[in-house]
Amino acid sequence: MKFGIIGAGSWATALVKILTDNKIPVNWWVRKEDIAEHLAKRHHNPTHLSSVYFDTTLLNLSVDINATIAASDCVVIGVPSAYLLDVLGTVHPTAFEEKKIISAVKGILPGINILLNEYLKQQFNVSSSNYFTVMGPCHAEEVASEKLSYLTFSGNKEEEVAEIAKYFRTYYINTATNNDLTGVQYAAVLKNIYALGSGIAHGLEYGDNFLSVLISNAADEMAGFLQKVGIRNIEVGMHDGENPISHKKVANYATSVYLGDLLVTCYSLHSRNRTFGNMIGKGYSVISAQLEMNMVAEGYNASKCIYYINKEVGAEMPIAETVYKILWEQLPARKGFRFIEEKLL
Amino acid sequence: MKFGIIGAGSWATALVKILTDNKIPVNWWVRKEDIAEHLAKRHHNPTHLSSVYFDTTLLNLSVDINATIAASDCVVIGVPSAYLLDVLGTVHPTAFEEKKIISAVKGILPGINILLNEYLKQQFNVSSSNYFTVMGPCHAEEVASEKLSYLTFSGNKEEEVAEIAKYFRTYYINTATNNDLTGVQYAAVLKNIYALGSGIAHGLEYGDNFLSVLISNAADEMAGFLQKVGIRNIEVGMHDGENPISHKKVANYATSVYLGDLLVTCYSLHSRNRTFGNMIGKGYSVISAQLEMNMVAEGYNASKCIYYINKEVGAEMPIAETVYKILWEQLPARKGFRFIEEKLL
Repeated sequence: MKFGIIGAGSWATALVKILTDNKIPVNWWVRKEDIAEHLAKRHHNPTHLSSVYFDTTLLNLSVDINATIAASDCVVIGVPSAYLLDVLGTVHPTAFEEKKIISAVKGILPGINILLNEYLKQQFNVSSSNYFTVMGPCHAEEVASEKLSYLTFSGNKEEEVAEIAKYFRTYYINTATNNDLTGVQYAAVLKNIYALGSGIAHGLEYGDNFLSVLISNAADEMAGFLQKVGIRNIEVGMHDGENPISHKKVANYATSVYLGDLLVTCYSLHSRNRTFGNMIGKGYSVISAQLEMNMVAEGYNASKCIYYINKEVGAEMPIAETVYKILWEQLPARKGFRFIEEKLL
Repeated sequence: MKFGIIGAGSWATALVKILTDNKIPVNWWVRKEDIAEHLAKRHHNPTHLSSVYFDTTLLNLSVDINATIAASDCVVIGVPSAYLLDVLGTVHPTAFEEKKIISAVKGILPGINILLNEYLKQQFNVSSSNYFTVMGPCHAEEVASEKLSYLTFSGNKEEEVAEIAKYFRTYYINTATNNDLTGVQYAAVLKNIYALGSGIAHGLEYGDNFLSVLISNAADEMAGFLQKVGIRNIEVGMHDGENPISHKKVANYATSVYLGDLLVTCYSLHSRNRTFGNMIGKGYSVISAQLEMNMVAEGYNASKCIYYINKEVGAEMPIAETVYKILWEQLPARKGFRFIEEKLL
């Protein structure tokens, strides 16, 4: 299987490290010429995870995305959701034919409020049997320093998912498989909203006791939404190269790809969503917080997407909806959290 | 309702603060004469939460436990589980007749491996309809500084539970009610084992990614155990003085008293269980870690209790069992966690 990786941010860079540590050659699309040149000459990505050394004999670097896709059987899309439409706009309409796509994108496409698989189906006729995801609680920095992390690969056919996961299993990456494509993608979006909410709570000077109540209720709220959009009998497995070594049906969403990712995001002091929320809680306006951080936290757009999607889905989401109203409808954070307080159990 | 509080540790002291902040008089049993005198003269507990000022006109302090119980309709037991048998050994066999008992004890009685309600039934003929618990994620220090916290009161009859909870609701305490007496008590025990395990993982230098996977799988493991020992249709409510303002059935244990308490304990750097585990992970023997800390972390005894109790219950508990084997059967921590690694999903 020939792998292509689209993107050179920290998460895409981490995924290239994992594959090349397994001695798997990678076709790597990098948007900027100078980054590609630095990688080829210096063996490091100068802007993300710059401590990671790459064996360039395993890299086929390119700034031509269609060339990278053409050279690959399996294309990993690792571009932040905010830039995704721009990047995919340069891809030839038939480029993804017969390709397997693995989404490493943790977000909904902004503006059009749909998941990547739905967009790829509409625009590139990618079938759901050729679509996979790689998700899970994974700070790229910890992959760089080879701290044991868990990635969950999802797709419709368990054997194919297990086959793909095998390439990513290494001494610092364990891989699980799961058949809940829709649920894992939404979980990756929702966790950013709750991390932003945790940040707001921190900014409002709630303590650790409250934070734990907020996050446990967020886990429950997420589970309620996922039950409505995903599938009920989620099957999760772990394979050791060839054989399944662990396998179970999951009903309560307490595995790494759902609850684990929520926890690592909400409790991380390095989370941009949490930092952004903290500033909102301390009284910054959304605009000043964005200017100060010089970026947009993913949970900001996500809160709006989920707010509108949930008008159809109809899950009870007092936490996510209040975060949306604080960020987009000028609801004062203190007032929003007084409302949330009464909803927690 | 006349309240008595048994104990003057940090948690019992916090509960006295909550009641007296609501202007409710408290009969307070304090073991040591000098602490009682300091409280009466100086209005502060000199050894725990010493920043809290008490209105002594609301306190009926005593070092005679039977006098405190006799003067009360509702007795809150707030003694750490390790000292509980000693303390209860001085209570007259008929002292608890007609009294309501609220357990604030987060542990199993050491040596005899039973929950407090079972012990009180055997020794003092306390009926299950007179037994209640107060549990939840609650660092006493945050109660002292009046950070909003959530307490869950459990018992067999919802109206009676709601009636008791009302006395404890204040501007920094929200109260929920719940009908899962057995489950909440076990959850309070299990969380200490998992916090100890989180500490071991930290001592072994696993990172945040792994920790989130470990804790989410611990939440799942806990849910599996609680489903076997507790009740299936847990009803959780919140009451605002008189009326229920929120109510739901819970299946996934993602509320404050289960998942919330697990999170605050596992993620708190101040947790003694986590600190103890950290030392074990770094290679200290159990004896040296205990000597160094000058105390026994609750999760240490709890791991043994649960290990034996689960021989009957039969839940899948690879994390809790491995923690037990590391602490009690000289399983090297590294080896134990290699085993756990393969069980996580």
